[in-house]
Parts: sequence; structure tokens; C-alpha cells
Amino acid sequence: MQTAEFIKASRGDHPCDLLLANARIVDVFSGEIIAGNVAVSSGRIAGIGEYPARRTVDLAGRFLAPGFIDSHVHIESSMACVGEFARAVVVRGTTAVVADPHEIANVLGGDGIRYMLDSANDQPVNVFYTLPSCVPATDMETAGARLAAADLEPFFENPRIVALGEMMNYPGVLHGNPDVLKKIEAARRHGKPVDGHAPGLSGRDLAAYVAAGITSDHECTTAAEALEKLAAGMHIMIRQGTGARNLSALLPIVTERSSQRLMWCTDDRHPHDLLNEGHIDSIVAAAIRGGLSPVTAIRMATLHPAERFGLTHLGAVAPGRQADLVVFSDLTSLRVDDVYVRGELVAKNGRTADGVRTPAPVPVPPSMKVNLQALDFTLPAGGRRLRVIDVIPDQIVTRQSIESAPVEGNRLVSDPSRDLLKIAVVERHTGSGRIGLGMVRGIGLRQGALASSVAHDSHNIIVAGVTDADMRTAVGEVVAMGGGIAAATGGRIAARLPLPVAGLMSLEPVQAVSDAMDRLVRAARGLGSTLKDPFMTLSFLALPVIPELKITDLGLVDVREFKRVPLFV
Amino acid sequence: MQTAEFIKASRGDHPCDLLLANARIVDVFSGEIIAGNVAVSSGRIAGIGEYPARRTVDLAGRFLAPGFIDSHVHIESSMACVGEFARAVVVRGTTAVVADPHEIANVLGGDGIRYMLDSANDQPVNVFYTLPSCVPATDMETAGARLAAADLEPFFENPRIVALGEMMNYPGVLHGNPDVLKKIEAARRHGKPVDGHAPGLSGRDLAAYVAAGITSDHECTTAAEALEKLAAGMHIMIRQGTGARNLSALLPIVTERSSQRLMWCTDDRHPHDLLNEGHIDSIVAAAIRGGLSPVTAIRMATLHPAERFGLTHLGAVAPGRQADLVVFSDLTSLRVDDVYVRGELVAKNGRTADGVRTPAPVPVPPSMKVNLQALDFTLPAGGRRLRVIDVIPDQIVTRQSIESAPVEGNRLVSDPSRDLLKIAVVERHTGSGRIGLGMVRGIGLRQGALASSVAHDSHNIIVAGVTDADMRTAVGEVVAMGGGIAAATGGRIAARLPLPVAGLMSLEPVQAVSDAMDRLVRAARGLGSTLKDPFMTLSFLALPVIPELKITDLGLVDVREFKRVPLFV
Repeated sequence: MQTAEFIKASRGDHPCDLLLANARIVDVFSGEIIAGNVAVSSGRIAGIGEYPARRTVDLAGRFLAPGFIDSHVHIESSMACVGEFARAVVVRGTTAVVADPHEIANVLGGDGIRYMLDSANDQPVNVFYTLPSCVPATDMETAGARLAAADLEPFFENPRIVALGEMMNYPGVLHGNPDVLKKIEAARRHGKPVDGHAPGLSGRDLAAYVAAGITSDHECTTAAEALEKLAAGMHIMIRQGTGARNLSALLPIVTERSSQRLMWCTDDRHPHDLLNEGHIDSIVAAAIRGGLSPVTAIRMATLHPAERFGLTHLGAVAPGRQADLVVFSDLTSLRVDDVYVRGELVAKNGRTADGVRTPAPVPVPPSMKVNLQALDFTLPAGGRRLRVIDVIPDQIVTRQSIESAPVEGNRLVSDPSRDLLKIAVVERHTGSGRIGLGMVRGIGLRQGALASSVAHDSHNIIVAGVTDADMRTAVGEVVAMGGGIAAATGGRIAARLPLPVAGLMSLEPVQAVSDAMDRLVRAARGLGSTLKDPFMTLSFLALPVIPELKITDLGLVDVREFKRVPLFV
Repeated sequence: MQTAEFIKASRGDHPCDLLLANARIVDVFSGEIIAGNVAVSSGRIAGIGEYPARRTVDLAGRFLAPGFIDSHVHIESSMACVGEFARAVVVRGTTAVVADPHEIANVLGGDGIRYMLDSANDQPVNVFYTLPSCVPATDMETAGARLAAADLEPFFENPRIVALGEMMNYPGVLHGNPDVLKKIEAARRHGKPVDGHAPGLSGRDLAAYVAAGITSDHECTTAAEALEKLAAGMHIMIRQGTGARNLSALLPIVTERSSQRLMWCTDDRHPHDLLNEGHIDSIVAAAIRGGLSPVTAIRMATLHPAERFGLTHLGAVAPGRQADLVVFSDLTSLRVDDVYVRGELVAKNGRTADGVRTPAPVPVPPSMKVNLQALDFTLPAGGRRLRVIDVIPDQIVTRQSIESAPVEGNRLVSDPSRDLLKIAVVERHTGSGRIGLGMVRGIGLRQGALASSVAHDSHNIIVAGVTDADMRTAVGEVVAMGGGIAAATGGRIAARLPLPVAGLMSLEPVQAVSDAMDRLVRAARGLGSTLKDPFMTLSFLALPVIPELKITDLGLVDVREFKRVPLFV
């Protein structure tokens, strides 16, 4: 609708499309609850008050708030594609997300970003993106792409791109790496902010990181850290994800006085948690249970992220803004009843509404360049003692141990009696045939093998197993599925989850993904694993930025020293 | 300094230029006071903490806050040019202003805007502008220019232009006037907000005005009005000017909870008030006296206007931000001791610092196209009863009276015995020779005449007097000065103030302007005027948007009917 027409609708010159009558409106500007009717016309809020309407829904005093916004999320962590992720979160009241397609960009580069942009069209949630700033995440592995400042430049014009994404390369910032600074400068030139990622950064290094132009952080784990970063000028995204759960540590810093630049994010939430715990609604409710005033908690889920990212058409119930609205009966439990996006009812009582259309899937390039014939996990015994990656249950940090090498003949083998498994990272982006090999302890398999193309951050195929044959079977299945997760034993596939989108995302609903993951975990347990989520553990063993010992397709990496180390000592 | 170099300064790799040590820093992000040292390098804040420094100033526990920002001001109202205005306000802690050059644009059009832009260079205050949206203000007078959307378009790229200026033409917005909507659309396209001006607008008309894209208002006079506009999504600029003083009415709405989108402005402050009352400092102090928490009052003078206008490099004491800082000893009286702009001391104890340079004046086009020979205030007696503009002391609204016409021979004359003076508006922009003539009561002159080229909003020459001869003398002096204000009697000039910049602004310091105005007011009193400020009264008698009866070069205007009316009834 043209502005002139919309002005007429706002003035009530002709009936609005929908009147949400008798609402208790959460006014995120004043922080008060206001009784009124909200008129919707052409998907936008025409006004609040008495309006002629074609259709009226009586809210009978229920609360009406702006739809929730996740200020930082990796959709890939849901293992669902954009559309299915959107369906899973919109029923919880999320009407917009600011997603960082860091994972798919590490696999498919610019094609991955374009895929995510195209997939965002016609979804029941407003999907915005930040441009992945750190692809590849490190030079100690083979990623699927390398995105320099010049590669990112063309994307900044896209209206779905609202920021440069989390700048994990803080050493690069602090040392004035020219390409890093070029990326920041490009964002500035396009009037878009830069998100940070700087766990534990403090003092003068933090000052330098902020001075370089980075104005948010979602990695705070203590109140002191969050307060220092807030005072340094950062917007603080309080994260409550599947792995990293910072709400209880950071809630004490949130007051009406401090909250202006505070907001919520999930960063990474796995399918099971999205379905059972929820999304931003669950954080708002938990914050309220923790003593925060409901309106402040809602402001942090709505107006504050909208302002952070310049989304002036979202985040509030006010004239001209998009009619993205949630309805709920109780200001404490915050269980969302109805969800409107652009004025259309898209969800009711936890289910997507009839008539919410599903856009056709967007084609995605293949991402599995692996020569299965050449797959060989043989490792000659090169010494008597070797480095072992020690898994710490439920954590993504590891330790390094030195153990005597389990050898048969002149080859290294898994030794389930000591819980020592062979682990390998199979390069899948270039077809190089490169395999990094090592040993891991703590996964607990007594037989079989587990393989996955979800392996942060380069997402090569990671596999751990008792026999080379089952490792080959599991990897073979992952490749055959065009990406995914598999458990194999005795030459058979015990469970599987195809992830045909870049080896990271399924095309199935989140519920189906969650069910498949449950079957995979049960299968892994059947093979002897004692871990709560062996595949999540596996997926972080290839991440060479988290201490202490990790493995990539290039071999073992001592993260404390940021260098590759040999297997044998 | 390049970013890479600045990062080194932030990390303390080499000494900073200046360390402001032992400060109590007003942290506008958290709303707390933090003890620390502030390091400045190349005019920006390098960091807060321990830093090596070339020079250290020990603040000995004094408070350090971001410099104050006036969110909406007409510099022309100071009757000083940009540089002298800047000198007058910087000593009060103002380090940035968002000025609307509406007055000069009505005289000189685009040339006036360019003059103001050029005059902003190298000043000790950061001067930003909004683009005048309503030139001319009405069609019931002859202005010096007409600025359509296409005329404004090229200015939006200028980094000093931060918004489209106050949209006074709310009837135009509400009726969908295409050129008005084009201006708003141009601002949106350039990512710049639109300031509003909508006194008393409410309900669905307010909704339509906001929905059109207008997101601030500085015209609220009651708490209820401000709360309604805040809830509608507007940033509210609480105004405390010379004429309009809304602080006491609006202070009750300001709380920590509501303050996020509230800020201060002066709109119009005359020279005397700038010198004696102060600027934003005076509003902050008055708000604190009124019970507001000091940090909230300071946030509204710093971070909030900076965020409103996307000035992310201003408004806070934080790494990377411009080192615009004020120092004061007492958090209640808020008397500013020292002022730093871009890390340089620019003012101390109410005086500008030595070494603050004065940029050369920018040339300004002439603006007095008046043929003095043709000047004729003769008015044939056209009836027995006529409309009289009734001045209400200290108000800009007037009333209309019907009086018997004072006639000598067949001509209308002033009649001091009934306080009826001839009043005229002499068109000065096109040299048309057009003169609007009428009668005014309430100025009180017993002899002589007063004339001024400050006459809102078109700033033709307004003159009122007892004799045609003195009216000619006064106008002649205004024209001879290239614009200004004059009092004449018996063929002589009793007092004068040259305003060579568009007939609106002096090149002298604000103190000299104030002194000249005092002399003018004394002269007017000597001629019999009983008004507190007869020239201010005069300047609003030509403003045909404020009820009830006004006069322009086209004649009398009945503002209630928005139409021209004849003098005689």
C-alpha cells in the first residue's frame, strides 16, 4: 500500500483489515501497559484506538506485545532449513531473527549466503542476516570457502543484511589485520553495525576491539564481563542456548536503568530444545521468573534488538510498524497464544495456522566432494606414545593426554578397553582426499562408528570408531546422503539423519530432525557411548579455536599454542 | 589517525595524547558512575583505565560526562552566526547541536543551507543540520525560496545532514500531499529520520502522521500529549526555549523506565537567555532540581539524542567515540568547569579556551531586495471599520478586534491615543515592492517606529510606527544594514542591530548582540512601548500559522480560516 493510502487507513477514512480489540498493549516505549484496540491495515499497524474494521478479533483483555526477535542465532544449529526453523520458532512468538549464516558460509561461501537469503523469502518470520566475518574461522583446517572483504562487499546492499557478523577473529582486530579492518570499514560505509564475539576480552584489548568499530557481544559469561562490555559501549546480547546458558549469571545486571542496550539471543539451540524449551519466549519467561519486570524482559526481546539493527519498522506496537504481534494471557508465564506476522495469524496455541504457505525449497549446491574409493583410515605406528584428545562430558573444551599407542602389527588401532578410539576428519570441500587422524578418549563406543558432516567450523566430515571398516561405512553413508549424520556397526547403518543442505541442515520439520537425532543418540548409546549427546561432542572436536587439543583435516591442533602438533610424541 | 594506528593507541602500545585521570565517569550505557581514567588519542577516546600518556590532567574525582547535545535548535534565534553561537554554548558544555536552518532557508533557500553547512566547519561544536522541510511555511506570504523535494535531495548525502527537519505541514502529511511525501521518502531512502512538529496532534491524525514516517516531536506542552506521542513511537524532545518552556509540564513523565526515547532541546533561545540562563546545561540542572536522577538527565542530553540521529561516534564516554567531554564538580548544580571537543580543551570556567580558532566568515548572498524610493505606506481610507491585530503580551497568538478606522483626510493613520499603529510587511526577497498594510494594537508606541527583518517565517521586513516617515526611516535603516533591527524617531535612528547574514544573524559575539538588543528594547520603551520584548512580539506578527489575525506582505491573514481577509469590514 502506498503511503498516501496508508495515511488514509491510519486516519480511519476507510475500514482497516483487522482490529485487535480490547488488548492490553505492551508499550515498549514508555514501559507501560496500555488498554486499547490495534488497527491493522496492509500488514502494518494503522493506529491504536477506535477504528472501523472489516474484521474484529476481541482479545478480551489479553496482552498484546510486539513479536519477539532473536538478536543472534545460527539457524544451522537447529539442523533445520530456514523455513522449518521459522515454523518451529514462530509458534513461540518469534517473528524476526538476526541470523549469522556462519556455518553454511564455511561450507559454501557466497553461495551459502545467497541460499540463506533466498530461503528467507515468503517465510512466516522476518529473517535478517549478519554477514559472516570469519570464513574460514582458522587457517588450521580446510574450509569450503574463503570470504575476504571484497567477497562480502556486494552483500551489504541487501536489505536482509543488517550487520557484519560476529567478529571472532579478535587477534586479527587487535593486530590490525588489513582484511579484517576492511570488512569493518565496509560495514561502516554501508551504515551497518558490527557484531562482536570476544569471550573474556577485557581492559585495553577490549577498548581496542570496541574502538575498531565492534559494538555488540553475546559471549559474556559473568556479570562483571557484561558490565565492562556494556560500559565500553557494546550492546549486550544475553545468550541462552543449548550449550551456552548465560541467563542466570547475567540476569543480576539487568535493571530498568541498565537495560537500554541489553537484549536476548539463543546463538545455538538444538532441535530438541527448540521444541521442548522454546525460543526467545522461554528466555523472557525465565527472566521474569528470575525477578525481572515483564515489560523490561519484553523490551529486551523486541525494541532493543530492533534498534540495535536499525529495524525501525519492527519491535513495537505503534503506527506504521509491521503488524508482528504476539498475544498471551499471562504476563508471567508468557505462554504465547496467537502470533501475527504482517497482520496475518500465523500461529495459534503452539501450532502454525492453516494457510501459512511453505515456499518451494531453494536449490542448494552439492557440498560433498569426497572420493570414497580413496578413503583410508590406516595410520602407521609412528611412535610409542601419542597425544589423545580427552573429551570432557558436556563441554566443548577438551584436554590433551599422553598415552601409550594402541598398535596392531605396524598400525595404530582403536582400543575400546581403554576407550581409545580412532578419530578422523575427512576433508569434504575440495576433494583433496586429505584426512586428519588421531585418537580420542571419552566417547565410549565399544563397537561401530559415528560420523557427521556437522563439524565446527569448517564442517568437514568427522568420524570416530572402533574399526576402520565401520568408520568407512559411516562416512560413506554421510557422503551418500549428500551430508548428514550416521551411526554404523558391523557394516550396517544403525541410524541416520540426512542433512542435504550443505551437510548441515535437513529439509524436514524440526520435529522429524529431533526424532532422528534421538534415534541417532540411542544408536550411539547402543554402541556403548555414555555421552549425553555424542554427536554434539563430536561436532566440536574439530573446532580449533576452543582449547585444548582438537583435530582438523590437517591433523592435531594444540589450541593453547594455536599450532599443529604431531600425533606421536 | 588510521584505524590500525588507533587500535595500537587503545591497546596502550604508545602513549596517548591526554589522560584525564581520576574521573568519576558518567556511564550513560549502564546509568552508573564509574571511577577511572579516560585516555584520549587523536581526538577520540582510546580507552578507560591505566594508560601511558604524554600529558595527564588530574580531575581529582570530578565528574566527567559526554558533551551535551541540543536535539533541536534554530541557531538563527540566537541572532548570532554559527561560530558565535557555538562559542556561546560550548562554554555551557554543549558540544553538538542538531540545528534546523529553517529561517535562513526561508530567506536564501539552498544557498542558506549551504551557507550554514560551510559555516559549521572548524567550529568548537559539532554542528549537524536537519533539512528544512517546510519552505515556504505557507502560501499566504512571499518567502525567499521554495524548496521542493527535488531541491532537498542533493543535501541528504552531506554527513552534517542527519534528518529531514520538523514537518510543520501536518495538514500536508495528513492529506498525502505528494511533495511532502516525496521529502519523507527521500529521507527514508537516505537512512535518515524525519523530525516532527505537531502541536496538539492526537488520536488517528497522530497515528497517520507517525505512520507517514515522522518519528519525533518537540511541541508537546502537556504530559498527556507527550505520553501519547511517546506511545505512538515518537522520540520526544522536551523543549525549554525562550518562549516555549515545557520542562515543568513534561518532567513528570520522565522516569528511568520511560526515558529511553526522551531528550532535551531548546528550539529557540534568544541571546540574553543563552548568556544568562545557559543552554542544555540549564535544562539538565533544572530537571535535576525538579527531582530527576542526574544520570537520567544527562543521558537525555547525550546518548539519547546521539542515538536518535545515528551519531554513534558521539554521546558517550567509550572507546572509539569522539572525545567530547564535560567536567563538573557537582552532580546537582551541574556547573560546567571544563569542556573538551575532539580531545582539545575548548572552554574553562565559562570562557572559551585560548587557542580556539575562529574560522573565517563564510560569504553569504545579499537578501535585501527592496526599492526604498518606492516605499510608500499610504493607505486610502476604504471604510469606517477595520480589523485590528490585538497583541497579547508575551504570547505569539493574537486576537482580532474590529475598530473604527483612524482617518486623516482620506488616509488611514496611526492613532497613539487608542494605541492603534500602522503595521506593514515589506516584501524583501524579490523586489516586488509589495507591502501588506494593517493596524495593530498593544505595542504601545507614542512616537517613532520599529522595524525588523526578523519576521517569522518568511522574514520580510515588518515595521510598526506612529508616522509613515519614521516607518520609512526604520525600514531604510534595516535595508541599509543589509538586514537587521532598527528603532527610529523624528527621522533619526534611536538604536540598531545589523543582521547582515540573511537579515537574521549578526557576525558579532552573542554578548554584543544581546547588548544591542537591550539598547533596542530600551529605545522602544523610550518611544512608549510597554512590551517586555517588542521586537520578539513584532517578529511573530507576520507568522500566518499562529492564530488569530496576522499580517504578511500579501495582507491580513485570518489564521483560524487559513485565508486572507480585507482590512476593512
